[in-house]
Formats: sequence, structure tokens, C-alpha cells
Amino acid sequence: MNILKENERIDDLHRNGYLIIQDLKRFCFGIDAVLLSSFAKAKKGDKVFDIGTGTGIIPILMEAKTDAKQFTAIDIQEESVDMARRSVILNKLEDKIKVEHLDIKNVFEKFKKGSFDIVTCNPPYMNGEGLLNDFTPKAIARHEILCNLEDILIGASGLLKYQGKFFMIHRPNRLVDIIEGLRKYKLEPKTIRFVQPYENKEPNMILIEAVKNGGSFLKVLPPLIVYDKERKYTKEIYDIHYN
Amino acid sequence: MNILKENERIDDLHRNGYLIIQDLKRFCFGIDAVLLSSFAKAKKGDKVFDIGTGTGIIPILMEAKTDAKQFTAIDIQEESVDMARRSVILNKLEDKIKVEHLDIKNVFEKFKKGSFDIVTCNPPYMNGEGLLNDFTPKAIARHEILCNLEDILIGASGLLKYQGKFFMIHRPNRLVDIIEGLRKYKLEPKTIRFVQPYENKEPNMILIEAVKNGGSFLKVLPPLIVYDKERKYTKEIYDIHYN
Repeated sequence: MNILKENERIDDLHRNGYLIIQDLKRFCFGIDAVLLSSFAKAKKGDKVFDIGTGTGIIPILMEAKTDAKQFTAIDIQEESVDMARRSVILNKLEDKIKVEHLDIKNVFEKFKKGSFDIVTCNPPYMNGEGLLNDFTPKAIARHEILCNLEDILIGASGLLKYQGKFFMIHRPNRLVDIIEGLRKYKLEPKTIRFVQPYENKEPNMILIEAVKNGGSFLKVLPPLIVYDKERKYTKEIYDIHYN
Repeated sequence: MNILKENERIDDLHRNGYLIIQDLKRFCFGIDAVLLSSFAKAKKGDKVFDIGTGTGIIPILMEAKTDAKQFTAIDIQEESVDMARRSVILNKLEDKIKVEHLDIKNVFEKFKKGSFDIVTCNPPYMNGEGLLNDFTPKAIARHEILCNLEDILIGASGLLKYQGKFFMIHRPNRLVDIIEGLRKYKLEPKTIRFVQPYENKEPNMILIEAVKNGGSFLKVLPPLIVYDKERKYTKEIYDIHYN
């Protein structure tokens, strides 16, 4: 088997020596996936499920950072699943990470309800306004074309055990929809952290932890600042990437 | 009439020469009221309604800062209403600010629905857990004893015109209840701003602007930082107080 297809390249994840295959013409992982894989916590023995895994970046990074037992990842795009599987093989993680070609809307045809400790998701952020008939891989990964926020929340809530944890990164301008949707599907928001590009700038991402059947109390963490005044990574961001 | 009762004192608001009467044994206004009066915007000719006005601080400061036409303020505590009215008289604002002794739950017995452009509220923050039979003025102002968040949202939504604006300050740990409640009563959250005591600390207050019957899009502003590294007010906070 050729590990790389046309237009693909291998990048170093600077973590356990792990590598990842990406196709620059499709959708490459961004800082959001790296932040989510650091914000999401998993305990020893946990079963983790990643919705819309793309390159497989989140389970691969979380495998390096946590003691979780098993990762399951799905994606609606067959080419992404194929590429993520080859990254898993490249890192010799076939026993730990399984990647399936599956639509989150059909997830319970294949997976049992209440069978995961952790669900992660770096979803399409945009609700598809202004997009007409754009079904390119990038558009599908970025916009709510083939699945929307509600589909993801229904899936996440169903997959999680009682008191299981859901970790997601999204856009601050969707926060109201996110909070309303989480509550609707019994995922109580427990921790949020805004990500600001600079210290005095509006946040452009939000990290969210919700607990299935959790009680009402939200902790808002201090914002995570990406760049310092000299436009270099702050120490916290540098540590997330490299330490 | 004696303008001051026992235990009361007069403080300078550093704004239009306005003064305010406070009773240190009751509930004195805090930085939250000052921040809300600056965050809340009113246009020329607007009719403004303040729920749970306490000392009357919010309409008095907003009268100085905006071109609103008329302010109506209510409070459930008769002694607060009496004190706020005397502050209004002290500042010769009787024509602009009316203070009524009224429970928000009965507000539509006295005021017509849809008759205000702006509603403001600096409510009791705590949901009363651990409080038993404490009906002191301070407890009533701080805890949801005589009215809760839902009572306030029902009142605010009813009082506002179509596209009228609701401004509130609250605690970040109640954000999920707040967002869910605002949507339930057709008050769409449009702008939020967290207030942090220091740059790298968790926020301890949140400013919220919601629009009656507004569309779904939230703007999250950069956080408002109260103190700098030398534990002095930041320039922005200094300007809110004195400029």
C-alpha cells in the first residue's frame, strides 16, 4: 500500500513522534483542533468518540496526551476516513484508534447508546448562509451542509454515558445556539473558555465542556490568548503545541 | 423634609455634580451598577425602565450619560424607594426619573406592555441556596428571595417594545440559565462582555445586551479588565467612573 496519495503530505505533530497525513487541497487541521485536543480531558481506561474527525488529528493527539483506552472516530467524507486511517497506520495506532465512514445522523445503527465516556467534536462552524450547492470537501468541513449543530448534539448526548463529558470548539457568535442546544439534549455546559487572538481583541473561538445530566453551574475560565504583543505564540499556546 | 435619615450618607457620583444617598447598613451600589450604567445605551427620546433600582444609581447615572427622555424605576423594598426618591430630589431630577414601590411580578398592573425602549437590571445574583429566612435588605438585594431571574425576564420582555433593548449585569456562573431564559422570553442575546478583576483571572461579572425579537447572532466583546498589575484601575475603568 502506498501511504501517500496525490497532493498529500506528511506533517510532524511534535508529540510522541506522531505524524499526520494532510491534503492541502482538502481541509487541513488548524489551531482549533490542537486547542480542543488539549482542552479535552480523558481518564485512564476511557472510551473516546470523535465526531467529524477529518484528518484524525484529535484522536491522534489525545492518544499521545491521555491514558484513554480506545478511540473511535467517524467522518462523513470517505476520502477523509481513508486518509485518517493511513495516519493511524503510519503511527502504529491501529489497536487504539478506529476510524469509520459514518454519518453522525446514523451513528446508533452502528454504536450503542450510552457507551462512551468522552465525546469530542470540532464541527463545521458556519450555518451555511450564502452557500448554494457547494459540496467541495472544504465547504463540507466548514459549513453545516451535511450535518448541523443539532445533529451533533443529538449524537453526542446519545453516545455518552451518564456523567460522560462532551468537549467541543466553536465560534463565539454561535454561543447562544450552542447553550440552548446543549441543555435541550441534557448536556449541561460546565466549563467554557474563550480564545482571543490577542489580549485586547474579541474572542474568535470558544472551548466548551458539557456533562451529560450534569447540574447547573458554569465555570468561565480566563481567556486563552494566542499571540503576544510581538505576534509570537504566548507561552501557554507554545506549551500546548510542543510540551 | 430632612433629606437624610439615620445611618445615611451622601456620596458624590463624579458625574454632572450628581449625588446619591446611601445607607451603609443596607445595600450600597457597587462597581457592577456603574459598569451597567455605562454598558447600557439609550438614544435621544428613549423611555427607560430600571428593575430593582435600589439606591436609584442606574437611572441617575444614565440620566447624566444619555439623552433618554424619561426614566422609570421600581423596587420591591419600600425603604429603598424612599431613599432613591430623595436622591432624585437632591439632584433636581423629579421630572426625568420616577421611582415606584412595586414588585416586578405585578408590573403590568401599573405599566402597559410594550411601552419602553430600554430595560436595565442589576438583579440579585445568587439563587438563594443556603439561605433560610434571611429577609434583611442586603439579603433581598443579593439573593433571589423575593424575585428570581425568570420573574425579571418576564417583566423585561413584557415592558419592552419590539426591538427594544434589555441590559443586565450578572454572574458568569449563571450564564447558561440567563441565555436559556432570555431566549424563552424572546430576548435574543446580542452582545456580551465579561468583566475580569485582573488580566489573567476568571471573569466575575458579565454584561449582557439582548434585543426583543432580535435575530440570532452574538457578539462577544474583549473582556473588561478592572485592575492593572499595580492593582490600580485600568484606564477603561477609570474613564467609566470619571470621564
